[in-house]
Amino acid sequence: MKFATLRPAPDQPPLVALIDAAGQHYWPLNELVPEFQGDMQQLLRDWASLAARIAPKGEGRLLDAARLEPPIHPHRNMFCVGKNYFEHAAEFSHSGYDSSTTADDVIPKFPIIFTKAYNTLIAHGDDIPRHAEVTRQLDYEAEFAVIIGKGGRGIKRANAYDHVWGYTIANDVTARDLQQQHKQWHLGKSLDGLCPMGPWIVTADEVDRDDATIKCWVNGELRQDARLDQLIFDVPTLIETLSAGIELKPGDVILTGTPVGVGIGFNPPRFLQAGDIVRIEVEGMGALENRVGD
Amino acid sequence: MKFATLRPAPDQPPLVALIDAAGQHYWPLNELVPEFQGDMQQLLRDWASLAARIAPKGEGRLLDAARLEPPIHPHRNMFCVGKNYFEHAAEFSHSGYDSSTTADDVIPKFPIIFTKAYNTLIAHGDDIPRHAEVTRQLDYEAEFAVIIGKGGRGIKRANAYDHVWGYTIANDVTARDLQQQHKQWHLGKSLDGLCPMGPWIVTADEVDRDDATIKCWVNGELRQDARLDQLIFDVPTLIETLSAGIELKPGDVILTGTPVGVGIGFNPPRFLQAGDIVRIEVEGMGALENRVGD
Repeated sequence: MKFATLRPAPDQPPLVALIDAAGQHYWPLNELVPEFQGDMQQLLRDWASLAARIAPKGEGRLLDAARLEPPIHPHRNMFCVGKNYFEHAAEFSHSGYDSSTTADDVIPKFPIIFTKAYNTLIAHGDDIPRHAEVTRQLDYEAEFAVIIGKGGRGIKRANAYDHVWGYTIANDVTARDLQQQHKQWHLGKSLDGLCPMGPWIVTADEVDRDDATIKCWVNGELRQDARLDQLIFDVPTLIETLSAGIELKPGDVILTGTPVGVGIGFNPPRFLQAGDIVRIEVEGMGALENRVGD
Repeated sequence: MKFATLRPAPDQPPLVALIDAAGQHYWPLNELVPEFQGDMQQLLRDWASLAARIAPKGEGRLLDAARLEPPIHPHRNMFCVGKNYFEHAAEFSHSGYDSSTTADDVIPKFPIIFTKAYNTLIAHGDDIPRHAEVTRQLDYEAEFAVIIGKGGRGIKRANAYDHVWGYTIANDVTARDLQQQHKQWHLGKSLDGLCPMGPWIVTADEVDRDDATIKCWVNGELRQDARLDQLIFDVPTLIETLSAGIELKPGDVILTGTPVGVGIGFNPPRFLQAGDIVRIEVEGMGALENRVGD
């Protein structure tokens, strides 16, 4: 199933909605399961008791008439993984923007973990703030994101998928100059609005995570084109690594890294400009599209 | 004024309490201002209307009989600053543990920003988890922490202190091996329980931030001894830097960095061992003391 957070009209509060397979109609979840009044965090926590009771009724409403919100509000910063596709690791290390690599660790030996906070989240269709006053080097990063359902500590690879509730698409937009200058990446990664996410969350059972492609276009030009099974550290490894010393909680979000083809992989670099349209598609999950603001 | 979050008895829910100057007695804030039922986040948001109405009544209760909690629950990860005292920057760069420095930037040109999540927070008196299964290199870092009161974006140095509600003491405990292996510092900094904080928050008017000393002892041996005015990037600069592209929110927390004298500054390094007692004192603010668990 697919679930979005949306406002039926701009002046109405956000609610969780079931989305049809075509991504064209929705049903407010509180009309399908009347006692459910919560947000996406509540849905995934109560999933065991709710799942069997959720089914579309009638035609649903037109999604075009609603306003999408970021699908989930995380309780702590989202975990993000750096340099997690081989060719991107090489591209980034050779770009001159990588402040934490020496010649012998172009390919990371351990997952590189940093964070993005909730203030970065914007919805499908929202403008990406250009932040012209603090950066001249905005770059896109198409990513596959994991939504944790069941929490836990010391989760092993073999059981890791039991803890995944769903997946979504994210754009780990990065201010490359800040990422480089400040050495640790948080600031360049966490400016307001630098994480388009959505358009919705797809429950784990519906995603072919071993075979799906992830693609990114800028103004219609294909820039990134990879398969999810090309991750250096796969989803079970990331969950094992994080949960070894951090109790994962329901609703935690993990951005798994971006493939080769980001703006700084070109020579000269091709940074995002006002009006650019970034579109990211993960096979079977839909597309996340955002324009860079003026 | 000083405010703690505490449980009057182990089975009672946490509440905000006014602490006396000597740090020996407390008054539940809801007994001084009956309509206040919130937590520390609520207190700092409602500060303008509440401040004038808060005054001790009678002798108060004995703090020793209560159980302290971490003073505040942040809504997003705490902002942390790396290498923000000159001598510590040199000590860390020369330790072999700094994965993001070359010879020409031993002293950072821009603040190094990373984060710690809420799962790291423990109270004064709590044991620091040793995490023996994932690290053999736990290290202490005495820090002065800023609690944001009034939020804002684009805050200038000159106005920065208008946005500070109070200060507290933090121990930015770090798993050095993970900090080094994973390149970005989040994982080594954010294992469960690696941020003792407290014992309370002191409102900004009571802290002599330009003259106070910060000291840290391990098992009674003085290891760190500095003055807050030795920060490379001072509090107004940090607030200006962060808020340039991130809207600061009431209740945000900024850990300002640690002075020279951490365990990896010694040769050989002196890592924390089970049973070690780490005590951090900031002049006029009290002391934060924690034992390393078995």
